[in-house]
Amino acid sequence: MLKNELTELLNIEYPIVQAPMAGGITTSQLVSGVSNSGGLGMVGAGYLAPDAMQEQIREVKLLTTKNFGINLFVPNEFQVTQDEIDSAEKKLKPIREQLNLHKEQQLKIPDYRQHAETFNDLIKIVIEEEIPVCSFTFGLPSKEVISELKANNIILLGTATTVREAIEAENSGMDAVVVQGSEAGGHRGNFISRDKDSLIGLMSLIPQVADNVRIPVIAAGGIMDGRGLLASLCLGAKAVQMGTAFLTCTESGAHQLYKQAILSAGEDEMVLTNAFSGKWARGIKNRFIEEMQEEGVSFPEFPVQNALTQPIRKASSAQNNPEYMSLWSGQSPRLARNQSVEELINNIIHDAERINR
Amino acid sequence: MLKNELTELLNIEYPIVQAPMAGGITTSQLVSGVSNSGGLGMVGAGYLAPDAMQEQIREVKLLTTKNFGINLFVPNEFQVTQDEIDSAEKKLKPIREQLNLHKEQQLKIPDYRQHAETFNDLIKIVIEEEIPVCSFTFGLPSKEVISELKANNIILLGTATTVREAIEAENSGMDAVVVQGSEAGGHRGNFISRDKDSLIGLMSLIPQVADNVRIPVIAAGGIMDGRGLLASLCLGAKAVQMGTAFLTCTESGAHQLYKQAILSAGEDEMVLTNAFSGKWARGIKNRFIEEMQEEGVSFPEFPVQNALTQPIRKASSAQNNPEYMSLWSGQSPRLARNQSVEELINNIIHDAERINR
Repeated sequence: MLKNELTELLNIEYPIVQAPMAGGITTSQLVSGVSNSGGLGMVGAGYLAPDAMQEQIREVKLLTTKNFGINLFVPNEFQVTQDEIDSAEKKLKPIREQLNLHKEQQLKIPDYRQHAETFNDLIKIVIEEEIPVCSFTFGLPSKEVISELKANNIILLGTATTVREAIEAENSGMDAVVVQGSEAGGHRGNFISRDKDSLIGLMSLIPQVADNVRIPVIAAGGIMDGRGLLASLCLGAKAVQMGTAFLTCTESGAHQLYKQAILSAGEDEMVLTNAFSGKWARGIKNRFIEEMQEEGVSFPEFPVQNALTQPIRKASSAQNNPEYMSLWSGQSPRLARNQSVEELINNIIHDAERINR
Repeated sequence: MLKNELTELLNIEYPIVQAPMAGGITTSQLVSGVSNSGGLGMVGAGYLAPDAMQEQIREVKLLTTKNFGINLFVPNEFQVTQDEIDSAEKKLKPIREQLNLHKEQQLKIPDYRQHAETFNDLIKIVIEEEIPVCSFTFGLPSKEVISELKANNIILLGTATTVREAIEAENSGMDAVVVQGSEAGGHRGNFISRDKDSLIGLMSLIPQVADNVRIPVIAAGGIMDGRGLLASLCLGAKAVQMGTAFLTCTESGAHQLYKQAILSAGEDEMVLTNAFSGKWARGIKNRFIEEMQEEGVSFPEFPVQNALTQPIRKASSAQNNPEYMSLWSGQSPRLARNQSVEELINNIIHDAERINR
């Protein structure tokens, strides 16, 4: 029941993909641990520079001979005015002060062309390093990039939040599609559908996507255990992608206080905010969100707001203060455990087999 | 696999409860059809007067000898000022005009005390008529009412949108709890948790509630077929409650254009609005919502706004104009079919057994 065309394609024992969480969470220990335990480990390379990504790939290769994958953010053009930046800086100032970030650092405003060049460099490394699986968030790469990756036999995974986006992913040549339900933690992956229209719960999203695409569906959002895995397979998915469940594992690189915040949170404490990055994302409500997210307030587009808040998140983390970190989490924190990746995966499979009996 | 302590308690063949949709949808044909096909039919008596409810109960009894249930809205105190009413009336005026509702009808502002009296009258009828199952939305009845119903061996179902609300339902003496996921159509049933915090997808909500209450969990929201039923059972529910799936059935009393709107909708066309009733509810976006739901606008509390918009919804329906009706629907419209209740239930069971094989 746990074997299907997708586990065969990805060459994994269990239909479990570790979500490619960005920002230092997907350590080489986490990624290799997942692959060594029968799932698919994924390096969240969304914010990585090419050399850093290459270094991590080589590190993971030393730790596992199994398949693992890379996730890249597809760069998008963005428009931002100096006024928007000034207004955001003004809102952030009191928070900076609270964290003793008095020295105004010279802001490096992100540049789309530079992002696009970096993206191409990352793609080159994925090919050079013969990474078997590459997934994409925030859109789909160009036809040229897709052709090149496919010519190198790299399996491609798109990310979609609606039926329309999943169809687009299939039409572009993706080999499978990760469907992100409203339950998911972290950034929303919508790229055609509007933010609010794309908040669809997995109970609705999985079967509607499965009915409308031929490529395998990977379900993501709030899935933490054998119950969620089996439910996703019943609904028509061929695998699950789990983020929060791996984030609280021993091997994850998340800050200890971040892990603790999830382990002690209720399901109703997660909110959607665009205050951290300019893009909507789900996380635990903390002082940063309370102070920034007022009705009617808008922020510079992603990734500009992300760049503006980066020193704050970094300082908050260094000062062991979870109130100004981005505490991304899905809607099932009560199911999170602090355990090893191997224990997590064994428990999932054990539970799924028990329920299915 | 489809039999458990809850199907035994409710004395039904299949773990399928028909959602008690209010406003004329749950005809006696629908309710009896569900019960005769092995599920639990429910009369949505939320907006019914005592004599109308009694009349329908007697009608259903002529059509089935099987168990069926009644749903009641628990009345809540509300505060509304003349200013709020005037401002709402002003916003509604152009819509009234478009529908040729020129004669300003004398508005009967709902009165809490009267609602509470009506509620007590409805409870009396439930007891007199020996209705086997009674479910509640928008809160939990008083200890006295619960004791009286239990003394008469009536099985009680609460409605919850978060773990906290489910625990409250259990503590109050409910025999089972309907957990409403964010996918659900129609009104949100939250009564302790705030609107936004209570939008939790079923993939997250079912297992977290199941882990925290001892009473059986009934899953509601976006469930339309055998896939959703099986998935809900995997996640820890003992039954499902389905609304939209029954709404498009032949026997439902929904307006033909309302059924058609669901049958042709995409999963991303459902929005949350409080413009129809003052309470948040999920439905298909139409002109009414577009014209009324501006950012920052507030409406008089439920049920006052509901009373204010009632003539508009009625006229829109009479004029066969779906643009000003409340087109409540869950997030899975692509899975809706126009079929008989018997066909729907047979298909669900057939699919669930096929998947489970």
